[in-house]
Amino acid sequence: LGTEIGPILGRERDINRCGSSAHKTGRAGRIGDDAAEELRKVVEEFAIRVGKEALELATHAGRKTVRSEDIRLAVKRIQKE
Amino acid sequence: LGTEIGPILGRERDINRCGSSAHKTGRAGRIGDDAAEELRKVVEEFAIRVGKEALELATHAGRKTVRSEDIRLAVKRIQKE
Repeated sequence: LGTEIGPILGRERDINRCGSSAHKTGRAGRIGDDAAEELRKVVEEFAIRVGKEALELATHAGRKTVRSEDIRLAVKRIQKE
Repeated sequence: LGTEIGPILGRERDINRCGSSAHKTGRAGRIGDDAAEELRKVVEEFAIRVGKEALELATHAGRKTVRSEDIRLAVKRIQKE
């Protein structure tokens, strides 16, 4: 599953399009290059974790197809509200 | 910030490349089209939430630049371990 959802994540330069060391935005402050790469990494890990959890929930419900409700419940189980 | 990190997320067809209603994978079972769209949505929301939290943490530390340690701490605060 991990390899399936990998392509939804782009490259870090898409997070931080400016080539310089920190991309200046208006309200938001700067995001360092290392932070952009870290964000990309944690988002990918989150996507994989949600996918795995959702698949477990679908299997538990006797299905082979993951549905949107599996995704929603998976997120609930992973995230603090 | 939300608009900055949006581009890291692709389209739902990148999650589920097959044009049919459910993409069959080997070990992983199927992901319905609605589930692929839901996954894209929750991943985007997560990325935005991490970004905002990380920015707060950077500001709290007296910085204007978000560092990778802000991202890591933000994830800890958002996710159940």
